[in-house]
Amino acid sequence: MPPFAVNLADIHEAAQRLAGRAHRTPVMTCTTLDRMAGRSLFFKCEHFQKAGAFKFRGACNAVMRLAPEVAARGVVTHSSGNHAQALALATRSRGIPAHIVMPRTASPVKRRAVQEYGGRVVECEPTLAARETTAAAVQAETGAILIPPFNHPDVIAGQGTAALELLEQAPGLDAVVAPVGGGGLMAGVTIAVKSAAPGVRVFAAEPAGADDAARSKAAGMLIPQTAPRTIADGLLTSLGELTWPVLRDQVESVFTVTDDEIIAAMRLAWERAKLLIEPSSAVAVAAVLGDAFRALEGLQRVGVILSGGNVNLDDLPW
Amino acid sequence: MPPFAVNLADIHEAAQRLAGRAHRTPVMTCTTLDRMAGRSLFFKCEHFQKAGAFKFRGACNAVMRLAPEVAARGVVTHSSGNHAQALALATRSRGIPAHIVMPRTASPVKRRAVQEYGGRVVECEPTLAARETTAAAVQAETGAILIPPFNHPDVIAGQGTAALELLEQAPGLDAVVAPVGGGGLMAGVTIAVKSAAPGVRVFAAEPAGADDAARSKAAGMLIPQTAPRTIADGLLTSLGELTWPVLRDQVESVFTVTDDEIIAAMRLAWERAKLLIEPSSAVAVAAVLGDAFRALEGLQRVGVILSGGNVNLDDLPW
Repeated sequence: MPPFAVNLADIHEAAQRLAGRAHRTPVMTCTTLDRMAGRSLFFKCEHFQKAGAFKFRGACNAVMRLAPEVAARGVVTHSSGNHAQALALATRSRGIPAHIVMPRTASPVKRRAVQEYGGRVVECEPTLAARETTAAAVQAETGAILIPPFNHPDVIAGQGTAALELLEQAPGLDAVVAPVGGGGLMAGVTIAVKSAAPGVRVFAAEPAGADDAARSKAAGMLIPQTAPRTIADGLLTSLGELTWPVLRDQVESVFTVTDDEIIAAMRLAWERAKLLIEPSSAVAVAAVLGDAFRALEGLQRVGVILSGGNVNLDDLPW
Repeated sequence: MPPFAVNLADIHEAAQRLAGRAHRTPVMTCTTLDRMAGRSLFFKCEHFQKAGAFKFRGACNAVMRLAPEVAARGVVTHSSGNHAQALALATRSRGIPAHIVMPRTASPVKRRAVQEYGGRVVECEPTLAARETTAAAVQAETGAILIPPFNHPDVIAGQGTAALELLEQAPGLDAVVAPVGGGGLMAGVTIAVKSAAPGVRVFAAEPAGADDAARSKAAGMLIPQTAPRTIADGLLTSLGELTWPVLRDQVESVFTVTDDEIIAAMRLAWERAKLLIEPSSAVAVAAVLGDAFRALEGLQRVGVILSGGNVNLDDLPW
């Protein structure tokens, strides 16, 4: 294993830090989905994680790692998604401020969730430039430290703890599949799996409409995502410089799926397995149900990371 | 404990029979719902049971109890709900026929589910009389044995196994709440709890639009349900002569909830706890969130049985 941003020891330390703070989420199975996949699937249910997504692991690990004098000044991030809620909730138990920069176009539901967890929402224009300058202004004003959503060692180590649990809960896995967006989950999971159980194969699942990981892997170099277009709104971002090398060196391959496949897989997960997952999670389900993955040989037992379940129930995709 | 249709030994035997056949469903918690309820809630997740509801427990126990020469002739029931699917699935592993009498107005989704599990759908007119005469005709023709949905000792004993698991999974409960329709789940759960842990209080939850249990309890005599009207379509039936005495003697009280409360509780369970439950399950959630239940003293830890998760995703109530 070449040196990456984090190693197995970092992930074990994160697991100790998260004990009693994050949920040890259950692993569920479904006979119908097994039959459709042609093998046994073990779903790691991060939609049951605090704040409804794996993001709490990384955010909590990063927040708990802060020295008291740094933590006291609070944390800041720019996000309109699960990382924002996770960070707000993670700071609450330490009693420190969380400044969440959100575009003014963010849904009221997401804004309210951050506020309910005790976060302070700072509005900005809906552009990446505005988000970054607003976050920088908050930092300058408050001294808060930036906790980015994925390209950060403590965040990556935190996300990797989901895989440590999965390996314990579902012994004898032949492979693990996780969705990839910025790559924080993917990198943490991959490092955990390939260090703790090197024989277990690791695959990524990605929306065809935001396939920078697949294209980067094919090209052997990081190709940023431009103009993503997919229902999987947690997977729009480009890989980061800390997450890309892990994907490049340790992930066997990236499977892309269409939005139609994502929606069909999400509905199957709801209907047949009662797993209330969001589209970004359904990307991994769609991948293991697809022909390309089904054609892989030697995989009897496959772990699938269901990344989260934060869905707008007033706007379901069917 | 007076003699009821089943006793604790019957439920323990059912549990042995179901081992490896039914899922030991997880117990989940949710901080937000705890805060709203004013106490700690432990959700027994029967929506993760095979065929998506607790009904599989009773159906499987009843099917496995049949002597080989009886079983060979198959089973029959009239139901358009979860019992039909559960019975079809339960017979599959024994390789015996399941004849399911369904009104021709039953949804194609429900019919298809029964057929997918290997059941034979027998259509009839949508009246109780037609259902009963059609089922009798199937019995006469095939020699199949009738497995009713709730008023049967083996069915009641099977349902009670959910409570045995809950008591193990969530030690130190002060009370258990379950929804009541025909009373198979309620009776099985009550007998299990009051026999195995007599100090644990047992409450029933019922839709206001099908409140025969509340009215029967108040009157001290079985009052059949007429013209039920509620979104909780698993709880429309009247209590049976085997289930009513258990409710009368061992259930402390019945809490009724309106359809608006049921829908609100269902949405909360989906949104905040990611528990994909059907309206009949949400009845129990609504009950513990209601003012009347919140006013009860001395209840720190309350088990709530989530009975199932078979929902038409194209017709959600919000």
